[in-house]
Amino acid sequence: MSAGDDGNDTYGRKAFKRSKSHFTDRVTADGRDGWPVEAGRYRLVVSRACPWASRSLVSRRLLGLEDALSLAVADPIQDDRSWRFTLDPDGRDPVLGIRFLSEAYDRRESDYPGGVSVPALVDVPSGKLVTNDYQQITLDLATEWTALHRKGAPDLYPQALRDEIDTVMADVYEDVNNGVYRAGFATVQEEYESACAGVFRRLEALTPRLARQRYLVGDTITEADIRLFTTLVRFDAVYHGHFKCNRWKLAENPVLWGYVRDLYQTPGFGDTVDFDHIKRHYHQVHTGINPTGIVPLGPDLSGWLSPHHREELGGRPFGDGTPPGPVPAGEEIPAQGRP
Amino acid sequence: MSAGDDGNDTYGRKAFKRSKSHFTDRVTADGRDGWPVEAGRYRLVVSRACPWASRSLVSRRLLGLEDALSLAVADPIQDDRSWRFTLDPDGRDPVLGIRFLSEAYDRRESDYPGGVSVPALVDVPSGKLVTNDYQQITLDLATEWTALHRKGAPDLYPQALRDEIDTVMADVYEDVNNGVYRAGFATVQEEYESACAGVFRRLEALTPRLARQRYLVGDTITEADIRLFTTLVRFDAVYHGHFKCNRWKLAENPVLWGYVRDLYQTPGFGDTVDFDHIKRHYHQVHTGINPTGIVPLGPDLSGWLSPHHREELGGRPFGDGTPPGPVPAGEEIPAQGRP
Repeated sequence: MSAGDDGNDTYGRKAFKRSKSHFTDRVTADGRDGWPVEAGRYRLVVSRACPWASRSLVSRRLLGLEDALSLAVADPIQDDRSWRFTLDPDGRDPVLGIRFLSEAYDRRESDYPGGVSVPALVDVPSGKLVTNDYQQITLDLATEWTALHRKGAPDLYPQALRDEIDTVMADVYEDVNNGVYRAGFATVQEEYESACAGVFRRLEALTPRLARQRYLVGDTITEADIRLFTTLVRFDAVYHGHFKCNRWKLAENPVLWGYVRDLYQTPGFGDTVDFDHIKRHYHQVHTGINPTGIVPLGPDLSGWLSPHHREELGGRPFGDGTPPGPVPAGEEIPAQGRP
Repeated sequence: MSAGDDGNDTYGRKAFKRSKSHFTDRVTADGRDGWPVEAGRYRLVVSRACPWASRSLVSRRLLGLEDALSLAVADPIQDDRSWRFTLDPDGRDPVLGIRFLSEAYDRRESDYPGGVSVPALVDVPSGKLVTNDYQQITLDLATEWTALHRKGAPDLYPQALRDEIDTVMADVYEDVNNGVYRAGFATVQEEYESACAGVFRRLEALTPRLARQRYLVGDTITEADIRLFTTLVRFDAVYHGHFKCNRWKLAENPVLWGYVRDLYQTPGFGDTVDFDHIKRHYHQVHTGINPTGIVPLGPDLSGWLSPHHREELGGRPFGDGTPPGPVPAGEEIPAQGRP
């Protein structure tokens, strides 16, 4: 599962409930939980399929933390031991030396009965999981890891705007980020309808806002945009069909389609997205929704690189900062995952 | 099943094969198969969900055969005895007096081991099935039932254009009408990909033709348009998501989207379409593809009535004829099935 998904084989005839992260230690500048910010000490484990993990991929790129915080990318297809490093030589993460992310969970707490989820921060020296708290990790990357940020890193969680950012993110989480899952995993028509209607009600409420301004809050990219982006970039590829959020495709909403393409084409966003991982994960893992495991050929991805004209709205993507540099060697998205 | 669908529970790990109609008697002007054209003698049994049956619904309307050929509409949800008349009072067709279409099949041939499909023509006096030959029924309505056509009925299968119509229909059948089913019922990735690619290759090949001319063959509506219409009208509602034909929505192809809306807004086409029956049938019956039976809320149907501007291409929808009159009382589509 990715962060808090109950997963395909554990949801019953009840509303889908996202479980809370169990490991909520924080990596902070002052190290108050025993985990001080330190270059090279931690490993970020993600699946590029997972929208919750992908938030941290974007933040890490925007903030220039690639050298300080190394990256492990799990195979998009879990087996019954959950996320695995089958994309790596010999099926082992080369830094942690483990085959399954669950091994880092076990080192932290033996016989932990909960799910294994990404994103996960793992302490390299001890091999122990530090946190899988998907709601906190990116906020800490933005506010606690500042000593390691690149020159020109943007402020993704500006103090003066936090109330507004938190409010927007809470609504987007409930109705959109998690709403698509509630729709997709519903086994009762009424629950599906309520969730699906909520997704589109929220997207329609955001549309005039994003028709007026380039970004969700203020005039720069913030954490709120990152969190909306990682859901919207998956919308037409998986949520529209696989999760039945099909009132319209994002490509049919000119405002949101422009907004998400603008971000996609911004360094640090689209260069973290692997549509191949995304499509294979959802369609092959959720056999309760898609028993054949067939992965759709569509949608046509060529539109992602088309002009969006969002610059006309003004805004300063990185505020007083600058765009991130190129993707580090070895982290490029293979051709089949790119438009 | 509708015409020749192997259905959800009978396809195995092999390519989907559409079975041939077993009962291929024809109702003709000369009655050479024992079934002469005769007003009031036959009953047309359809599901409004089924694209094959819907061809005959359109033909019957365009040709003005409603009084001569009465109509039974089956419940869009079959049970293990197949199509049933559960929409009628006491669950019986008021004319044939039967609860299941299979009863008409049994009267024709006892212990017939094949599938029960629509469209079906049933002889009212004997209660026997005459034909379920979905490829022939509409051609015969157009060419054999002429004595009963309304004044101003169009020629849907004009002699001079039959070769071209047949060629277009054969390609559309293979790649589109049946191609969407091969894609949707595939259980092997390669078979799905081959079928889905074929659907879009054919639609893309038809696009420049339909950008130049209002109808597929000649300058009037023909059988070829009817057969393409009944697939296209279902495309975004079921084939795009449920059958994974998702390279693009029809609504994203301005030419085909204009073409199908033009026909939809033409009397005799859209007034036969029940989106509620279509969506419930596919999503609730094919549990091998959609185990939860959840019926998607989308797509937004409001676009079906928007202007299409296809008149600018010229063309004479009904040739030297006229549009059909209003839908007969009792055959109107309920509100939830209409845009």
